[in-house]
Amino acid sequence: MPTIGRRTAQRIALYLLKAPSDEVKALVDSVVEMKARVRFCSQCGGITEEDPCPICSDRRRDRSVVCVVEEPGNVIAIERTSEYRGLYHVLHGRLSPLDGVGPEDLTIRELMERIKSLGIKEVIIATNPNVEGEATCSYVASVVRPLGIRITTIARGVPMGSDLDLADEVTLARAIQGRGEVR
Amino acid sequence: MPTIGRRTAQRIALYLLKAPSDEVKALVDSVVEMKARVRFCSQCGGITEEDPCPICSDRRRDRSVVCVVEEPGNVIAIERTSEYRGLYHVLHGRLSPLDGVGPEDLTIRELMERIKSLGIKEVIIATNPNVEGEATCSYVASVVRPLGIRITTIARGVPMGSDLDLADEVTLARAIQGRGEVR
Repeated sequence: MPTIGRRTAQRIALYLLKAPSDEVKALVDSVVEMKARVRFCSQCGGITEEDPCPICSDRRRDRSVVCVVEEPGNVIAIERTSEYRGLYHVLHGRLSPLDGVGPEDLTIRELMERIKSLGIKEVIIATNPNVEGEATCSYVASVVRPLGIRITTIARGVPMGSDLDLADEVTLARAIQGRGEVR
Repeated sequence: MPTIGRRTAQRIALYLLKAPSDEVKALVDSVVEMKARVRFCSQCGGITEEDPCPICSDRRRDRSVVCVVEEPGNVIAIERTSEYRGLYHVLHGRLSPLDGVGPEDLTIRELMERIKSLGIKEVIIATNPNVEGEATCSYVASVVRPLGIRITTIARGVPMGSDLDLADEVTLARAIQGRGEVR
């Protein structure tokens, strides 16, 4: 399991061994219940208990914009900002030729169908700012481009609360290229 | 001195005590020489051995753009990106009412004179992406605005090589606000 190495695993195992039986049963029950109740939304691919998910079925959200992310966790991260009020689309992965992940392994066909059926006017590609994420961003943009709608990507730049001297060269270069008007 | 605490200071002092006299003399001489030879450029305020500095006197640089930074170290950081080919202006500080630093303590009057005499067409404000830097950015923009030239600021966003889930909410919100077209 991610972030759990051999030592942490042993610590958890010994803790569970000592713990009261009903506490261990409660843990087992919640895992079983989580596995039974939580699923992926049939529309956006995010995690949800109902299908379609609360975001897809929320009529107050802007249904002309879709934000494309790699994993369901990214939806949670963007929702936490309270900045975005449109829909999402989870690719469930990123292009990675070395791991044998190609476009057909991502939910790109589903994305195209949703863009057409929902009448989407802007696709915000919010893949991760690393090599595989940038490649995925370019690929998604090339597939969406023939539809003639607006295609944007989140800004790469210096993180807030930071210091210019701490930014790496690539990030600082992107921050200069991507500079915007002061209002 | 910055980054040197009590323990490091003691370690350095004991090292110098044991070191050969000519090595200690070489250190003293370089500090004296540095102090005598390195100065601030009378035009941009960056560090230099000649006045005006090599950047201000380089005729191949774009003399219609000036990048405003807080400290000389920021010039070095931006030069390392090889992305920017215009001039610089060092404010030598940032607005900080709590520390008693107001606009008159920064080189804002000099900036205004240089913008007019050089015929600058764009001011890129590259103050640090923190509270004091943002306040300084707004202030500089408000002073420059009556001149009617373009005023931009470097992009705030997710740093390259990172992951969306690791970005703090404020940075991610700025990255969404500041999104740009995919080309």
